[in-house]
Amino acid sequence: MWKEFEIPPSLGIYGSKETASEALSRIWGKRGAFTCTVASTLTSTIPGISDAGNTPELTLFTGPADAEILLHGKALCMNEIPINPGNIPTPATLTMAALQLSDMPCYIINGGCKIAPQIPFFDVGATYGEKITTGQSVKNVKEIFEKGKILGKNLAKGNDFIVISESIAGGTTTALAVLMAMGVLKENLVSSSSPKNPKKLKTCVVNEGLKAAGIKIGDLIHDPLKAIEYVGDPMQAVNAGMLIGAAKTIPTIMGGGTQMAAIIAAALELDPSIEGNILHGTTRWLVEDKYSDICGIMDRINRNIPLIYTNINYSTSQYEGLRAYENGFIKDGVGCGGSSIAAIATSSGRIDCDALFNKVQNIYRDIINVY
Amino acid sequence: MWKEFEIPPSLGIYGSKETASEALSRIWGKRGAFTCTVASTLTSTIPGISDAGNTPELTLFTGPADAEILLHGKALCMNEIPINPGNIPTPATLTMAALQLSDMPCYIINGGCKIAPQIPFFDVGATYGEKITTGQSVKNVKEIFEKGKILGKNLAKGNDFIVISESIAGGTTTALAVLMAMGVLKENLVSSSSPKNPKKLKTCVVNEGLKAAGIKIGDLIHDPLKAIEYVGDPMQAVNAGMLIGAAKTIPTIMGGGTQMAAIIAAALELDPSIEGNILHGTTRWLVEDKYSDICGIMDRINRNIPLIYTNINYSTSQYEGLRAYENGFIKDGVGCGGSSIAAIATSSGRIDCDALFNKVQNIYRDIINVY
Repeated sequence: MWKEFEIPPSLGIYGSKETASEALSRIWGKRGAFTCTVASTLTSTIPGISDAGNTPELTLFTGPADAEILLHGKALCMNEIPINPGNIPTPATLTMAALQLSDMPCYIINGGCKIAPQIPFFDVGATYGEKITTGQSVKNVKEIFEKGKILGKNLAKGNDFIVISESIAGGTTTALAVLMAMGVLKENLVSSSSPKNPKKLKTCVVNEGLKAAGIKIGDLIHDPLKAIEYVGDPMQAVNAGMLIGAAKTIPTIMGGGTQMAAIIAAALELDPSIEGNILHGTTRWLVEDKYSDICGIMDRINRNIPLIYTNINYSTSQYEGLRAYENGFIKDGVGCGGSSIAAIATSSGRIDCDALFNKVQNIYRDIINVY
Repeated sequence: MWKEFEIPPSLGIYGSKETASEALSRIWGKRGAFTCTVASTLTSTIPGISDAGNTPELTLFTGPADAEILLHGKALCMNEIPINPGNIPTPATLTMAALQLSDMPCYIINGGCKIAPQIPFFDVGATYGEKITTGQSVKNVKEIFEKGKILGKNLAKGNDFIVISESIAGGTTTALAVLMAMGVLKENLVSSSSPKNPKKLKTCVVNEGLKAAGIKIGDLIHDPLKAIEYVGDPMQAVNAGMLIGAAKTIPTIMGGGTQMAAIIAAALELDPSIEGNILHGTTRWLVEDKYSDICGIMDRINRNIPLIYTNINYSTSQYEGLRAYENGFIKDGVGCGGSSIAAIATSSGRIDCDALFNKVQNIYRDIINVY
């Protein structure tokens, strides 16, 4: 059935080229939809944990503001777009570029926001997560997981493939916690939106969470929903449900870095049958990051899941805020990698990294002028 | 460009066959999505106004329960499916049949429910409507209209056509009120889910609403959003927005009877450019109804909008609850007509009225066994 498929220079692959080519060929020129699950965990307000927001308090606005940017073109719940310290714009700018170039639909899911976004979103009954140091961080996990599943199944009816992604500050810490509770990781390999990844602090917070929950590393290897309930965040439960619901029938791009790795691990434990429909999609920035190891994490989860990344490069930008991406800031988020891969695939490669870069430059210029 | 298109016997047309054929040919074999906006107006609790629910209080559960049936297969917010007095099942049974046969995706929009449905739904910030006798029945009309527009525009990106529909008890009374405030109707031509349409009571309630709002018939001819705010319901504002958002680019089936007529009138006043993309879709039961006049209403609104209906017939059913449809009960609702037309069109006519009838029989049999 399958003919050799040429991977375009805009995309890079970690692992088996053959598996990745086969997966890409099934979404090439097909109709996709982008989804982004936005949420909050109070974990992000622990000083030093998250740079996804200019201050610890502002991190709670990051998810909803990103959702507003994607659907409305500008943030409504705050006066500017989410920025990391140093005026580095949210990766939603790249997601916007991918959506505008490809004209894909964009569905926002409220995965539990402290502040609800002021745009149409899917409600799945989720509320924001508590600090994982409480050892009891997510409410009604089962309900939001099941609703996620219904939603994923429904989206699979109307689309050839979908992208699942997230915007939740503090999410790499909750990802680390779930991966450790499941025993996938015994040490901190996860990423950060800051180049000086606060690894010690994250490990410390995670250990405090595990202790408060009364569990040790690997105790919840077969109960990922319990791991999420104790030390995860609500976005994880919703996205794990969506992944299982969608990937039963259609290829599903998990757009993101270590956060999506945790969800892939959880979903595969709950339903191994979806393996062949999962594509992990991220950016060159994350794969090349010296301070985290997405490839190592995925090797431990499942070597059959293709890890695909965009070769986007901001080094020639005249804007300092964009060039910062080349120095280890941000790396992925708001499905910027997954949406770029989807845009490239749905357009049969007509959209490439140059087009995405030019569009991001225009979007960033307009944003600077608006705010 | 357009070749002659044969209308199948499962479909009937009121008005120009040429216009209807041309419209149908544009959605034939194409990929569609079904949407249903569920909501509540306290108007339905005025005794005698609505039969969409076994008692006046139960009418507030009808919208959310219909939404749950469509996505979950059974009602969650109440112990049985919505029924009209006399054990006549909700028209959602026919909608389910159309969705199951066609495998179309189904998106629920919370257009302002008193009780939120326990399934994933689009939140557009709507709250339930007050009694129209207050003369101030819908809050934040502008906001929910604008969010509806964003949603419609977004759905238009991922689908070749969509169906817009409703489940709101008391909705024909609010439709009459808006049509009178806009001056489209000067008398009561609207439908009812009961064969003994309580026309006098409805007219009386509408007149009380107009008086409370300080307006006369036709005063708001050019301000439909004001008409909705004063004497309408929140579903109308959301669906008018969705219609304008979607029909800017894709054919849009307005699935329903007089309620959809009011929304078509409102949307055309706000944006006449969408005319060519509107299809009005209903059932033979409504078109043949002796106690209302959907054809007369549409003649007054716009003769260019094709009115298409399914020739579905329940007269040979062994179930009394279904045969009642042939005696003037229910007639349309929950987009049962629109979804049937969409199922027929998306399958290029492979699905027909016989198939729909057989599926409804199975669904009804299962429901009787479950509850």
